[in-house]
Amino acid sequence: MRNRVGTLSAVGDDELQTIHDASLRLLSETGMQVLDPAARRLLASAGCQVTDERVHFDPELVMDAVAAAPDRFELRARNPAKNLRFGGDVVVFAAVGGPAFVHDLDRGRRQGTYADQCDYLRLIGSLDIIHQEGGGPFEALDLPAATRHLDLFLAASRLLDKNWQGVALGRERAADSIDMMAIALGTDREGLATAPGVLAIVNTNSPLTLDAPMAEGLMTLAEAGQVVCATPFTLAGAMAPSSLAGAIVLQNAEVLACVTLTQLVRRGVPVMYGSFTSNVDMRSGSPAFGTPEYTKAAQIGGQLARRYGLPYRSSNTTSSNSVDAQAAYESQMSLWGAVLGGAHLVNHAAGWLEGGLTASFEKLVVDAEMCQMMAAYLEPIPVDAEEIGLDAIADVGPGGHFFASPHTLARYETAFYAPLVSDRRNYESWLEAGSEDTAVRANRIWKELVGAYEPQPLPPGVLEELAEFVERRKRELTG
Amino acid sequence: MRNRVGTLSAVGDDELQTIHDASLRLLSETGMQVLDPAARRLLASAGCQVTDERVHFDPELVMDAVAAAPDRFELRARNPAKNLRFGGDVVVFAAVGGPAFVHDLDRGRRQGTYADQCDYLRLIGSLDIIHQEGGGPFEALDLPAATRHLDLFLAASRLLDKNWQGVALGRERAADSIDMMAIALGTDREGLATAPGVLAIVNTNSPLTLDAPMAEGLMTLAEAGQVVCATPFTLAGAMAPSSLAGAIVLQNAEVLACVTLTQLVRRGVPVMYGSFTSNVDMRSGSPAFGTPEYTKAAQIGGQLARRYGLPYRSSNTTSSNSVDAQAAYESQMSLWGAVLGGAHLVNHAAGWLEGGLTASFEKLVVDAEMCQMMAAYLEPIPVDAEEIGLDAIADVGPGGHFFASPHTLARYETAFYAPLVSDRRNYESWLEAGSEDTAVRANRIWKELVGAYEPQPLPPGVLEELAEFVERRKRELTG
Repeated sequence: MRNRVGTLSAVGDDELQTIHDASLRLLSETGMQVLDPAARRLLASAGCQVTDERVHFDPELVMDAVAAAPDRFELRARNPAKNLRFGGDVVVFAAVGGPAFVHDLDRGRRQGTYADQCDYLRLIGSLDIIHQEGGGPFEALDLPAATRHLDLFLAASRLLDKNWQGVALGRERAADSIDMMAIALGTDREGLATAPGVLAIVNTNSPLTLDAPMAEGLMTLAEAGQVVCATPFTLAGAMAPSSLAGAIVLQNAEVLACVTLTQLVRRGVPVMYGSFTSNVDMRSGSPAFGTPEYTKAAQIGGQLARRYGLPYRSSNTTSSNSVDAQAAYESQMSLWGAVLGGAHLVNHAAGWLEGGLTASFEKLVVDAEMCQMMAAYLEPIPVDAEEIGLDAIADVGPGGHFFASPHTLARYETAFYAPLVSDRRNYESWLEAGSEDTAVRANRIWKELVGAYEPQPLPPGVLEELAEFVERRKRELTG
Repeated sequence: MRNRVGTLSAVGDDELQTIHDASLRLLSETGMQVLDPAARRLLASAGCQVTDERVHFDPELVMDAVAAAPDRFELRARNPAKNLRFGGDVVVFAAVGGPAFVHDLDRGRRQGTYADQCDYLRLIGSLDIIHQEGGGPFEALDLPAATRHLDLFLAASRLLDKNWQGVALGRERAADSIDMMAIALGTDREGLATAPGVLAIVNTNSPLTLDAPMAEGLMTLAEAGQVVCATPFTLAGAMAPSSLAGAIVLQNAEVLACVTLTQLVRRGVPVMYGSFTSNVDMRSGSPAFGTPEYTKAAQIGGQLARRYGLPYRSSNTTSSNSVDAQAAYESQMSLWGAVLGGAHLVNHAAGWLEGGLTASFEKLVVDAEMCQMMAAYLEPIPVDAEEIGLDAIADVGPGGHFFASPHTLARYETAFYAPLVSDRRNYESWLEAGSEDTAVRANRIWKELVGAYEPQPLPPGVLEELAEFVERRKRELTG
């Protein structure tokens, strides 16, 4: 999927320079707290001034690292037709990752189980517009915390032939992501290093902290030649200043710190610029998503990523607690921010609800519709004599209609985007059919899709090898 | 409200040229059916070849008219602070106009009454983001058809100090729009001719027909120096070819025919380029709105309007039958098409539901939120040392928070967009408060706004003069 419409700039070149300069000054003067000793040692050895846990970054070191990171990369999938390119004008939509809860209209909001997780993966597998799984849609709380990531990667490998994201939280999980991806792709760590398969999100702990598990995950991924997506959660008014400019400077500084660390671990390894700047709601103090500020921040983040020549990640977000109008318009504000911001990866593109606390089955379907519409919008239209059909217009003539025109009949089946969940029937037909709103229709659709889903089988032996790996690692982790 | 982000192009320059050339060829070779004899006489006298009701337009005549029409104009409102500028980077949001029905959650879908219409006008008056009334949100079916436009204009003049659109359907209604606007503004037809107050939508009857009432309305407005917004309803697959390129060529030809006629009536009179190209749903055959094709067409229409130097009108549309997720994402697709298409007037910006068959009270509130968010998005962000607040970031330091920072406290109240109907509370608070979805919250909001609304009184004597005019015209029209 390509964005052939282009990108928008939310600030001018001078303002971008101001943001850039302030970020480098912040990294140099205030520095960043890095809680992992190995990471601090590496940064110190590269010339950073390190005092206790605080690391001060030299601007030249940062910009050298930025220059070393590639502007595009490819991520392998089990089905090579589903390999993902990041960079240029390509846009990748990933499913929601990380919520605490799962929700559907039948059972309401609840803690997720492994069975739920597998159903969610089946739904992700059913929808071609979701190009990548997002690192686990929610936690399977009926499984032990220390090993449930293994069950997740096994389920994702078994149920999906598209790429799934890894998990960067700690060395163990990151390493397991890499090892299991290697097995699933029929390769080893060496093969994976030359053609990566794992992308995982590394969140800084804003303001200005890279905690130990995330630093470990970052270094494990980079060592193995896999892709870190560095994403600070700079919430203006809480973990970041109450100004968009301040929050973006903070975001930019934290991303650049992570980029620097990846390049010190393995020069030339792909790393993504992740933006997740939003703002608190001034009335409730809650985090707010899909806000006008979020949209602008997404586009400014894209401007910065392009300046640095780094592939860019944004998201599809909402604060809404149900799959209603607010959920849709906030997601749209996010999607337009992301896509016109030049995002190569739209993370959480489908399924996110409740400010990211819940993965919703119905929202996944509604988001898939929105992503499909965006993809159709980005497709250029053919403009030539045949498409215009002046003769057909003349034949139909004033006051006629085009229903039976040969020009129409030749195009009718494929001329326009066919919706997934939108209902375009007239009011009377809609009423007669039960006046279902979008969420209710989405509920029916996801159950049909999950029920009908047939995963592409893994090559002979791969499932066994993955299962053996999981068994061994479970023994090690709980031993 | 200004669009400082810019516009997007959905086709290249060559393709735009192809569309332009094909439109002029269509107008010249196939021509347009014009059902009003006076309009045909005027076009014939300007050199058009006229055979029966068919008028063939000379490309030079068309382009001469386009060159004569201004690229911007101002429309007066009763409150001069609410005068509207059209052109440049200004964006005007108008309320829905023209539906057959009215809907709210309490009473469902029904035929409108005069009392409903007045409540709808009160709601329009309450929301500053709605810059213009849209020519009557729905018909007041408890009033006689021949004279209900008079009651509408009286109510709009009495209840609103913002501009209201006129009605172009026939000479009588158009003239009444003009006369009543003149009285409401404390001027006369001459004063209105130098500084216009009436804008009305002229729909062609696609394909290629300008019917008699619309031609009369067009000429009446143009004669009086008032503004025609020429808008074909080119529904691809029904009244237009099943290709976006063909539908847009047809739209463009019909707009140019109307523009030509306005300039022959009164050279230099303002006229708007209206775009309303959408497509049928291939499954149901129903008109579909807020589709990806609609978004592209809105942006191509903007490219054509800019090429011709004409102020541009687009719309906020949806096919949804309820104020649900679909209503919101289709409206968003329309709004982004309109705003990034460079629309100066976003018609039906608030209230439209069911493919335009219904004006919804709740949708008006939800749309107002979306329009406010768009306006906030279009506001540039300040980027300077004070806004960035590097010292504040250093003071807070790694792992801290910004809640109590003086930099936050100085900005907290006004830093971010404050929503109208969005609920950003956490799930538990939202659940406890009744788990209301967006439509239910909008229902409460519109009733509060309508109940609290106090119109700005008309200057002494004006209401009496308007009432006398209405009484006299009712006698004449029903006499």
